[in-house]
Amino acid sequence: NDITHQEAFEVLLAAKKHAEASNTLVNIAVVDAGAHLKAFLRMDDSFLGSIDVAIKKAKTARYFNMDTGELGALTQPGGIIYNIEHSNGGLITFPGGIPIKNKKGVIIGAVGISGGTIDQDRSIAIAGAVAILASTNERTKN
Amino acid sequence: NDITHQEAFEVLLAAKKHAEASNTLVNIAVVDAGAHLKAFLRMDDSFLGSIDVAIKKAKTARYFNMDTGELGALTQPGGIIYNIEHSNGGLITFPGGIPIKNKKGVIIGAVGISGGTIDQDRSIAIAGAVAILASTNERTKN
Amino acid sequence: NDITHQEAFEVLLAAKKHAEASNTLVNIAVVDAGAHLKAFLRMDDSFLGSIDVAIKKAKTARYFNMDTGELGALTQPGGIIYNIEHSNGGLITFPGGIPIKNKKGVIIGAVGISGGTIDQDRSIAIAGAVAILASTNERTKN
Amino acid sequence: NDITHQEAFEVLLAAKKHAEASNTLVNIAVVDAGAHLKAFLRMDDSFLGSIDVAIKKAKTARYFNMDTGELGALTQPGGIIYNIEHSNGGLITFPGGIPIKNKKGVIIGAVGISGGTIDQDRSIAIAGAVAILASTNERTKN
Repeated sequence: NDITHQEAFEVLLAAKKHAEASNTLVNIAVVDAGAHLKAFLRMDDSFLGSIDVAIKKAKTARYFNMDTGELGALTQPGGIIYNIEHSNGGLITFPGGIPIKNKKGVIIGAVGISGGTIDQDRSIAIAGAVAILASTNERTKN
Repeated sequence: NDITHQEAFEVLLAAKKHAEASNTLVNIAVVDAGAHLKAFLRMDDSFLGSIDVAIKKAKTARYFNMDTGELGALTQPGGIIYNIEHSNGGLITFPGGIPIKNKKGVIIGAVGISGGTIDQDRSIAIAGAVAILASTNERTKN
Repeated sequence: NDITHQEAFEVLLAAKKHAEASNTLVNIAVVDAGAHLKAFLRMDDSFLGSIDVAIKKAKTARYFNMDTGELGALTQPGGIIYNIEHSNGGLITFPGGIPIKNKKGVIIGAVGISGGTIDQDRSIAIAGAVAILASTNERTKN
Repeated sequence: NDITHQEAFEVLLAAKKHAEASNTLVNIAVVDAGAHLKAFLRMDDSFLGSIDVAIKKAKTARYFNMDTGELGALTQPGGIIYNIEHSNGGLITFPGGIPIKNKKGVIIGAVGISGGTIDQDRSIAIAGAVAILASTNERTKN
């Protein structure tokens, strides 16, 4: 149950298409089930600082199998996992990281988006994550 | 559209002059369009801990193309990008980092100042950044 | 003179096609003129340890504007730059990293390949780097 | 017995002048007696990878109070301090790092050069280091 490079490409291209449709310049990172980088694209003129943020969002979403924004609600001062961002070489816990599930609902990776507002980033990440559910790609079907 | 070493020197010297005029001891870092260190100076008796802070302020300002103080307003507890400082090997998000623009308004690098109060640091960074706009240096003109 | 994301994609796909033609499982990394990650793909079943090696090969090729294998000839025991690998957060100095030039011969980025033999990696990197020279992509032409 | 920022500037400018006279594009780093960065300049079009190499050469020269090339003779396989490059966050032990002494012969810092051949780098570093011996600068005299 691991994302294929073909699926990672589909996530990347779907996220890019969604970003372009809303004139948002983003960095797109896809990690596999092991939270390791599988595919990445930095759109021209997007923030230089968003390369690492996008990758960390994707990793964070897979590390804890949740929307990074949900995690961020728990990491605030007084929160139950306050400052967990210090672990794993740095986590990003605001919106823009989303787990990727296959058609059976199993998490097979995650996507991280950075460069737009947090609402835009999250929306683009979701567009990327759901792309493989609609895919008729042979490798996905079999 | 990248800062030249001649321009980086001008930024450095203008910042130093401004710092001396207000008896402020600072570290001055200039990065290029790729956020790589281009020029640096540590004034005598300035804080040792400010070397890295100045460099990180300059990098942060270029990573996100904004005044580091503006970024800091968004990274507070409850802020939309809370704890983004954990990315990119460590960001500094309080005032003192300013993008450097050329005469056409294109960002060509950034300057980071650390050692004084945040108001002093920001004021010195601005004095450095605007110096190249007034320059009659040949490489800048052509 | 910086590689576009469209060009980076072309490099990625040309390298992937060349790798598939020789049944080689590789990681493909493209960095821009500032040595920052622009595009990446990890082929299914390629080595997990090759993610970082591919990225470091691409960065090393741009850091010193040369084939990483040429650099490696100089870093051996007794070589003139022995152990330079300890700089820049870790360099990779065996073959597989190649600068990417535009049609005017200006270096605009670099590509790094890891997963096959060093000869295979180098051959795939070259196939990727030259792809944009043949491109009729509009952004490349103008 | 610490280098002043005025002296560090003199080292920087003397090294730059020497580099320009031989058409060599280098990165110039000056560290103080505590091995902390005091002044830095990256010449236009010099290697991106030389920023860190120049800084590490300067630090290495001060860490062990010797010409980095002399150190390198001892770090080879079978050498008495084999692979000491792994310490201190990464050392550079080939030529181009030189301690800076004041007129009394006391080491007050170090200079590191990277970008040319190792002979050029070493020659430029020496030109920088000796510059303050000839200086009639007031702070140096007193």
